[in-house]
Amino acid sequence: MIVVGELINASRKPIKEAIETQNADYIKQIAKEQHEAGANYIDVNAGIFVGKEPEYLQWLVKNVQEVVDGPCCIDSPDPKAIEAALAVHKGTPMINSISLEKERYDALLPIIAGTDYKVVALCMSDGGMPETTEDRLKIADELINGLVKNNIPIDNIYVDPLVQPIGTNSNFGIEFLNAVEAIMTRFKGVHTMCGLSNISYGLPNRKFLNQAFAIMAIAKGLDGLIINPLDKQMMAGLIAAEALAGRDDFCCNYLGAFRAGKFEF
Amino acid sequence: MIVVGELINASRKPIKEAIETQNADYIKQIAKEQHEAGANYIDVNAGIFVGKEPEYLQWLVKNVQEVVDGPCCIDSPDPKAIEAALAVHKGTPMINSISLEKERYDALLPIIAGTDYKVVALCMSDGGMPETTEDRLKIADELINGLVKNNIPIDNIYVDPLVQPIGTNSNFGIEFLNAVEAIMTRFKGVHTMCGLSNISYGLPNRKFLNQAFAIMAIAKGLDGLIINPLDKQMMAGLIAAEALAGRDDFCCNYLGAFRAGKFEF
Repeated sequence: MIVVGELINASRKPIKEAIETQNADYIKQIAKEQHEAGANYIDVNAGIFVGKEPEYLQWLVKNVQEVVDGPCCIDSPDPKAIEAALAVHKGTPMINSISLEKERYDALLPIIAGTDYKVVALCMSDGGMPETTEDRLKIADELINGLVKNNIPIDNIYVDPLVQPIGTNSNFGIEFLNAVEAIMTRFKGVHTMCGLSNISYGLPNRKFLNQAFAIMAIAKGLDGLIINPLDKQMMAGLIAAEALAGRDDFCCNYLGAFRAGKFEF
Repeated sequence: MIVVGELINASRKPIKEAIETQNADYIKQIAKEQHEAGANYIDVNAGIFVGKEPEYLQWLVKNVQEVVDGPCCIDSPDPKAIEAALAVHKGTPMINSISLEKERYDALLPIIAGTDYKVVALCMSDGGMPETTEDRLKIADELINGLVKNNIPIDNIYVDPLVQPIGTNSNFGIEFLNAVEAIMTRFKGVHTMCGLSNISYGLPNRKFLNQAFAIMAIAKGLDGLIINPLDKQMMAGLIAAEALAGRDDFCCNYLGAFRAGKFEF
């Protein structure tokens, strides 16, 4: 299971302000906290700053990696911003994300082709957002084939089947879950990952719903999540779900987490 | 989703004592509380009382149905005890459980053949406890076919794939989960149900693990659970999981539960 820490995103007000005031200490603190809480990648997103995104994204990567000995998840659809971030990134980053939207696909493919980057492949096309399992499978199939043909090993591809809110359509949850399972079964070696918060959009008690949905997705094979790793309840849910899904030999990780107090909240 | 309230089981000390002292008020109270908390069936089990099980099981059914306008889940492998309970039971009971163990199968089949009872079909045979998905599927296949041939509608069959502890074998959770999915997919119209507590045997923080496992099983298609319906966190988990699994049109049940304070614990 890969955990991407989602907090350094300029759409969040404290991050926006830290970027505007160039408050490096705050960025470093949030990066460090997420890393210590178990994030394997630190997401960096400066998407709201039109025109200044490349400069700010580069600044975020630099500051994160000054305190975290680990990779970033470079979160942008803009090739210029990604290239600026890559210019200073140490180690092997994750790129979040390519999709089947033609403009985005054509712009990002040259940057990632033949690299050993981890690549998030978002199930979105110019036909719009997928609703059914079949919609997602069709886009995933084209994306995976396109990426593999361009020398991206399948093991480096993280398909994001795109979570949509059950408040809009009661079947959006199960269609997503079945897509995760179908993708993991049909394309051996590929990974799946997603952000969660859309699932509960418009409903009360969102944290509880999001955690339950993460656990369900793990049951279906999901092996990556973009979440807030400082949410102790969510992290405990992932550790339990992984043990229950047979991904934790002798329950070692579960027992270690218990001893470390990770189930106390 | 069918919820069977598990609390009236003589292996629990307060129930054993209530039976021994014929404390009907206590049994009635526990029955009522479970019913009000959402149990569709009230499990009754007097299995520890060798020789007196028929008399006690009948007494339990009588007392439960004096306060609960709903059916019992008659929990015994002994045809004599089941018949004694059936003699006083009002409405359509659930029988828990037949299995593929020859002695048990031959003894129970005449009681349930051609009835409209709900029948729990436990994946256990004289070959022992199943460990893999395939083991379970093989037993489920024989059980379902045998029951259907004996005029038990497939829609009344609840296959229990038998939960085994992940503390014993890290794969026991996923083998169970995959069995649920395979049974629900292969035998259209059948149901699956189980008790949960074995999954966490020998591990710390059992309630949390049990809840996560219930949520995972619902993602895989499980539609029945034998649980403590007074466990608010567990019940909230089921309500959320059902909404996420597309079994709650317009999230009506979820929203109603939220308004009723069922997510406050």
